[in-house]
Amino acid sequence: MNELMREAIEEARTGIHAGHGGPFGALIVREGRIIARAHNEVLSSNDPTAHAEILAIRRASATLGRFDLSDCEIYSSCEPCPMCFAAVHWAKMRRLYYACTRTDAAAIGFDDDYIYRVIRGEAAEMQVELSMIDRSEGLTLFGEFSSLEGKQLY
Amino acid sequence: MNELMREAIEEARTGIHAGHGGPFGALIVREGRIIARAHNEVLSSNDPTAHAEILAIRRASATLGRFDLSDCEIYSSCEPCPMCFAAVHWAKMRRLYYACTRTDAAAIGFDDDYIYRVIRGEAAEMQVELSMIDRSEGLTLFGEFSSLEGKQLY
Repeated sequence: MNELMREAIEEARTGIHAGHGGPFGALIVREGRIIARAHNEVLSSNDPTAHAEILAIRRASATLGRFDLSDCEIYSSCEPCPMCFAAVHWAKMRRLYYACTRTDAAAIGFDDDYIYRVIRGEAAEMQVELSMIDRSEGLTLFGEFSSLEGKQLY
Repeated sequence: MNELMREAIEEARTGIHAGHGGPFGALIVREGRIIARAHNEVLSSNDPTAHAEILAIRRASATLGRFDLSDCEIYSSCEPCPMCFAAVHWAKMRRLYYACTRTDAAAIGFDDDYIYRVIRGEAAEMQVELSMIDRSEGLTLFGEFSSLEGKQLY
């Protein structure tokens, strides 16, 4: 098997035996070298966003001192949930390798597939009720941002 | 206007004038009281995941000492991107208020709407190339997790 995927799965294995969270591990790889690794820490850190990919991206960004990881690839023991998939985009990465699928994750009790269905407009029930309020005041803020000189887009 | 949304927008305003990131602010509210607030810090922290909602959720979880925020609501100056929208689900929240829309965010240069279109299968081009590898070894890990005694699902 792929040596980097083996490492990602081993990282996940370490996490489940420590009781840190689900069976998810991720690596960030740059020029063939692992620059960050993480496993799911939702339970041990009491942080619902502490998925392996989010933590690995945060650690790689801290190591490199930049939020642009476009020269990096990510290896994950499972197809990322929408949170992590979007984070890969925000980090500007272009290559993602995964082992298990979102359906495999659903089979062992995780909601990844449900959240994908919500976003795709295919869920029968919505967990979250959304309300748009005060858009005009929000647009005033957006206009203020747009007119800022020297602002950096990312 | 809604007083809590006013606070969320003011939080975003503080962030843009400090040069921390885009015009995004979020509050976590429990029993009518603000328990966490955050603005986008992607630029100041060099962390591509440092969106307002992610930071607010992490701070609220740290304050309450739990990853389950089902008794909390979230206010955001903008419709959350897929990363933050999924994070709201992982935090088990049921109520989300937002001001600007993903289209408004696209109009001032942010990729939220593009990432939504990727997930919905509606994007003309894919930033990220995905490859499934070594699924069988991933499934071995998942089986190992499933057979762990006393494991906690979340």
